[in-house]
Amino acid sequence: MQDLQWIDYLGLVGAFLSSVTFLPQVYRAWKTKSVGDLSIWMILILLANVSTWLVYGIYKGDLAIIIANSIILALSLLMLVFKLSFGKA
Amino acid sequence: MQDLQWIDYLGLVGAFLSSVTFLPQVYRAWKTKSVGDLSIWMILILLANVSTWLVYGIYKGDLAIIIANSIILALSLLMLVFKLSFGKA
Repeated sequence: MQDLQWIDYLGLVGAFLSSVTFLPQVYRAWKTKSVGDLSIWMILILLANVSTWLVYGIYKGDLAIIIANSIILALSLLMLVFKLSFGKA
Repeated sequence: MQDLQWIDYLGLVGAFLSSVTFLPQVYRAWKTKSVGDLSIWMILILLANVSTWLVYGIYKGDLAIIIANSIILALSLLMLVFKLSFGKA
């Protein structure tokens, strides 16, 4: 196993921050049940974006990309469900 | 210059989609002047996340990462400005 350099740690920090970016938004939507200001197109493009990176990560065998994008995919799907269900209420 | 393979094109598609993900959200916030449902923490973590990837991309000399994250950084800053200004109105 190669020694990790500071830039590799920075990549891990980036992957971690990417993973948790949408956590507060999902929590807020769940708590307030209010999603009117969320753009459905942001959520749909996010799903496409994250799915693309997931395929990319799987092909490249890059575990950081796979893990980060799996988490973002789950959070985006939750945002989509909240947008569609709370949006109609 | 190396020949690009399909996986490289997929990476470019991912970078493009990542760049434009927040465009509809910025447009919606600008149009509606309503940002109450947006999580300030999502925006702040996004700023930290994108800044980290920007430093990473600059260090690695990866143009796709640099361009995508510069665009996302600009869009996140707009979201922050909208959240702070429209949020107080």
